[in-house]
Amino acid sequence: MRDLAYINGEFVELDQATVSIEDRGFQFGDSIYEVIKLYDGELFALEEHLKRMLTGIEEIGINLDYNIEELKEICQKVVAKNAKNPKVESGSLYIQITRGEAPRNHSFASDLAPTIIMYLLPAKSLDNQLRKEGVKAITVPDQRWDLCNVKSTNLLPNILSKQTAKQKNVKEAILVNEEDIVTEGSSSNVFIVKDGIIKTHPATQIILGGITRDLVLALATNNFSVAAEKFTREDLYQADEVFITSTTKEVLGVVEVDNKIISNGKVGEITKELHTDYQDYIYDWKQRGDSNV
Amino acid sequence: MRDLAYINGEFVELDQATVSIEDRGFQFGDSIYEVIKLYDGELFALEEHLKRMLTGIEEIGINLDYNIEELKEICQKVVAKNAKNPKVESGSLYIQITRGEAPRNHSFASDLAPTIIMYLLPAKSLDNQLRKEGVKAITVPDQRWDLCNVKSTNLLPNILSKQTAKQKNVKEAILVNEEDIVTEGSSSNVFIVKDGIIKTHPATQIILGGITRDLVLALATNNFSVAAEKFTREDLYQADEVFITSTTKEVLGVVEVDNKIISNGKVGEITKELHTDYQDYIYDWKQRGDSNV
Repeated sequence: MRDLAYINGEFVELDQATVSIEDRGFQFGDSIYEVIKLYDGELFALEEHLKRMLTGIEEIGINLDYNIEELKEICQKVVAKNAKNPKVESGSLYIQITRGEAPRNHSFASDLAPTIIMYLLPAKSLDNQLRKEGVKAITVPDQRWDLCNVKSTNLLPNILSKQTAKQKNVKEAILVNEEDIVTEGSSSNVFIVKDGIIKTHPATQIILGGITRDLVLALATNNFSVAAEKFTREDLYQADEVFITSTTKEVLGVVEVDNKIISNGKVGEITKELHTDYQDYIYDWKQRGDSNV
Repeated sequence: MRDLAYINGEFVELDQATVSIEDRGFQFGDSIYEVIKLYDGELFALEEHLKRMLTGIEEIGINLDYNIEELKEICQKVVAKNAKNPKVESGSLYIQITRGEAPRNHSFASDLAPTIIMYLLPAKSLDNQLRKEGVKAITVPDQRWDLCNVKSTNLLPNILSKQTAKQKNVKEAILVNEEDIVTEGSSSNVFIVKDGIIKTHPATQIILGGITRDLVLALATNNFSVAAEKFTREDLYQADEVFITSTTKEVLGVVEVDNKIISNGKVGEITKELHTDYQDYIYDWKQRGDSNV
């Protein structure tokens, strides 16, 4: 079974897929990425992911010639080339666009040819029991830079936070800034429910406004009170429900944070309902056969 | 003339030197780097650079099996392999050590085999006139993450700052934090002289303690009053002298910041003396034929 990666117009076996050591993505983290979930071979929220990607690319000034339609076409081609690969069923498409290859120098020519790579990631195994019973998390200091709204590959603070979570045998590290405000997770957005109101950090430049976050907020407004509002670590501990969202985790209940049991220690009713709404939404989207969400 | 890069024990032509797109250095900026200046084929401050590198590697938990003596040997081998390349005369050795290659995941196995790459960078052309007359700089917000003492390849804020400087046709972007404190340059340390006292930001975790910075501080204490002390943007404007230091820039006078002329607009006497002291030090070091500085 072939596992083909796309690199600048060519397809190569993933285990042969390389970039130059002078690629600025490698030397400076000078690149933007996306992870797009596949459901039965269809790319979910493709338009939204690519829009965010193009915003990031513009923000850091990568000289990309492709428009969103052309990028979509490449994405679809990568999926088609890997049609017989089981990753297509429930994995994800990984896209990374770097500023390109150049002799090492902090500053850059404005006309560098970007490096575009895409390939499929396998499905993240999330134990069904875990989804039902909820997961544990810890809080860690948010040590990231000031432009967290840019989905760049400067991910060292994220991976170190996630590793701390792994070492403590919990699913996610929730980032808390110097003012004790919960910003987001190391690879997710964080929500609380308190007295019937669903809250998550506003989409400012100190968080990455997730595609799943936005969709869950939109779905939630159909049935619940929703506020894009800051909350503290203490609010998190005292919440009636806590859940996290991401492309691969979807809507996932959190039942323990920093060894403190949240509410009754069970996945909350609103969390469950939002997870169901999210699944329904995906089902409807597949029925529509539309590339937009 | 051959330009050979070292990758995990192999030598390949630089333009053929690649890493996997699944290398964590590429996908997460999960790597540590150094740039070591060559003077007539000799690596300056090799021991100090490698020590700092090993500290960074330990800090982020890369599973490197090599000790400093083994790394030194590899560095020397890379120089020897490129003996006929003019870069050996006055270029630099670039080293990047990543956590290694693995299927994409924020968290990582603790036993990944790191990717070690080394190759020679050409000499940075610094116009002699510029060195004599001094360079211009601008100040920009310091947007970096909290662990700037780690010399990682999460360099996006640095390169964007440097690019802003380039666009304004000045040599360096000086980073100023939210408290209006000058931390360092985008790829240098920043010093001021005021009333005969030389000041630079203390080596805390909000700056990268440069090897050149430390050496210049040590040399300066022979003849001058020195203080590792915070100073503000206004102090910078009002300084008697401003200079920056780095491996490739050595000691470089700054005569204008944010379009404001520093003092009389000429490279200061203490700056000149420190530059001479630095050159003398390198001369003595070459005479000694010692790998330590």
